[in-house]
Amino acid sequence: MTSTHDIVVDQVQESRVGTTNFDNLIFGKTFTDHMLECTWRDGKWETAHIKPYGPIMVEPSSKVFHYGQAIFEGMKAFKDAQGNVHLFRPEDNWIRFNESAKRLAMPTVPEEIFMDGLKKLVDLDREWVRQGDGVSLYLRPFMIASENGVAAAPSTEYKFMIVMSPARAYYRGDVRVIIASQFSRAADGGVGYAKAAGNYAASFYPNNLALEEGYQQIIWTDAATHEYLEEAGTMNIFVRIGDKLLTSPHNDRILNGVTRRSVIQLAKDHNIDVEERRVSVKEMNEAAANGELKEIFGTGTAAVIVPVLGYKHEDFVHDLPAVDDSYATLFKQKLSDIHYNRVNDEHEWLVKI
Amino acid sequence: MTSTHDIVVDQVQESRVGTTNFDNLIFGKTFTDHMLECTWRDGKWETAHIKPYGPIMVEPSSKVFHYGQAIFEGMKAFKDAQGNVHLFRPEDNWIRFNESAKRLAMPTVPEEIFMDGLKKLVDLDREWVRQGDGVSLYLRPFMIASENGVAAAPSTEYKFMIVMSPARAYYRGDVRVIIASQFSRAADGGVGYAKAAGNYAASFYPNNLALEEGYQQIIWTDAATHEYLEEAGTMNIFVRIGDKLLTSPHNDRILNGVTRRSVIQLAKDHNIDVEERRVSVKEMNEAAANGELKEIFGTGTAAVIVPVLGYKHEDFVHDLPAVDDSYATLFKQKLSDIHYNRVNDEHEWLVKI
Repeated sequence: MTSTHDIVVDQVQESRVGTTNFDNLIFGKTFTDHMLECTWRDGKWETAHIKPYGPIMVEPSSKVFHYGQAIFEGMKAFKDAQGNVHLFRPEDNWIRFNESAKRLAMPTVPEEIFMDGLKKLVDLDREWVRQGDGVSLYLRPFMIASENGVAAAPSTEYKFMIVMSPARAYYRGDVRVIIASQFSRAADGGVGYAKAAGNYAASFYPNNLALEEGYQQIIWTDAATHEYLEEAGTMNIFVRIGDKLLTSPHNDRILNGVTRRSVIQLAKDHNIDVEERRVSVKEMNEAAANGELKEIFGTGTAAVIVPVLGYKHEDFVHDLPAVDDSYATLFKQKLSDIHYNRVNDEHEWLVKI
Repeated sequence: MTSTHDIVVDQVQESRVGTTNFDNLIFGKTFTDHMLECTWRDGKWETAHIKPYGPIMVEPSSKVFHYGQAIFEGMKAFKDAQGNVHLFRPEDNWIRFNESAKRLAMPTVPEEIFMDGLKKLVDLDREWVRQGDGVSLYLRPFMIASENGVAAAPSTEYKFMIVMSPARAYYRGDVRVIIASQFSRAADGGVGYAKAAGNYAASFYPNNLALEEGYQQIIWTDAATHEYLEEAGTMNIFVRIGDKLLTSPHNDRILNGVTRRSVIQLAKDHNIDVEERRVSVKEMNEAAANGELKEIFGTGTAAVIVPVLGYKHEDFVHDLPAVDDSYATLFKQKLSDIHYNRVNDEHEWLVKI
């Protein structure tokens, strides 16, 4: 057991990396040798521990099970051709994590625990980051309420943890979406902008109904009118009308995605006209009808860029055309080039471990 | 270890009931000797186990920590003067639990696990149900997603559990409320009507801001306009204008409370004019200004009936008057008489254990 920067490290006796089949990974099911755990108690963060990945003991009365104080981030580490390991814009995730924490009445996590802990952990398990296009180590920092007791009030204890899961390049399959006109993901003045666990649970049932209809995801609209596009739950959404790229501004219902922000910057770099403004379903349907709707795609850490092949809005069903100069393809390639350090990182998005 | 009706019972060696100080209980902190645990896996519920209360082993990747599939019910058992133990309208909770389950894409729990398990568990720990006005055993059935894995999709495994906590009569302290005009609890088409863990987490931060202003709770309004009263997060809300009792209809944003429903029935029994309809903040403020606003009170299992002493809406601050013929007092007494089996249970709300 060694201590670095106040992070106590308890290494595994023997790594599992050699016995892991990296060609046959199911997303989010395999975890690396180590995890980070840090407890907030009596108003302060205790010493962070990096220890062997494994189960934790939790009381059935633990508040996370009852009142849902739980937030997370999704991040990735990539290995370049020279064998160097990089994180992509990790500070953005740390900042957003703390915005989520504030909204859920949870303590913020200081940089020396979140960032230093993450770097230390990735460094320790760097053999788990493999080379190859689309290959990454998926990083999952999260925080849960860990006080025991079923009184409905904010927890007085929390656990911040990081677990890591190797991910291979994967093909998500064709994605067609339903534009929501009945169910909602988030309310004005609610927690839609936070990466709060409860937001995801709320989306599963409507998404199951979409799956039954043959659609893989839902593009959520504003709860009040269902007239404006918001996000897809695990992805922000971009719409290309003519050569103009549109995406909803982030607000208290819409996640301020790191990939979304990167795509906006890349669009500007490539002199693509990009507007952050409300996009109405009517505008999109009209563009679809008159042939101006060229692309819809989602952006997010897990899947990076996901082209939408078609959509349904009430009785209107539309298939997207094939386009030669796909923005989705362009951004996917450009992001991939940055992730794997194949081009000059002009925006300084990579952080070397 | 004995088996009854497919519920396997593993009793404690020695009960903790004799060493528990029932005069000094903090709500939701002390648990009885036993708990119930039942796992849903491969599409079906396995055998339910009643076992000693204690921690469970959970992987950090357990889906409840990441995607918030977690629902619960709050119920109570009461002991009457003859020493009989009763539940209050337990079927209503079971039905609502399954409505919550459906909305959160979780499996429903059959009667022989939820109801029979609950009865068996209360029976086993009946010494924990104490006599005395306001005294009860608080029952907490809940369900969590227990599959290991961080892919954002409904869990393939779940745990249904029941834990029980002895509760003494408690004085909640004065309750003054803020009428929400910025933050929201639930969206149209969302999960507000479900007892979903995430709904509570979302309310804590706004509630903390209210506490800083000297108000104990928030009465939520509709997210779209903030013009209509909804509920208080842990309580439904009743407003008395003149001699008329008003409460919001339950809908997809508002919990269909068992105490709420009981109060509506008791109002009818006492020829009190009660209307389930939208109540606007404007109507309440006008009634406050002209002296017609007699009472506001909350209803819920934990606190039963909670009179609201005053409220703030934007710049309008109002203290409720003292009334001689308080409905809140009446309903609290009537419910208490039923809970402790002191009157004829004409609606057959009690279920004897």
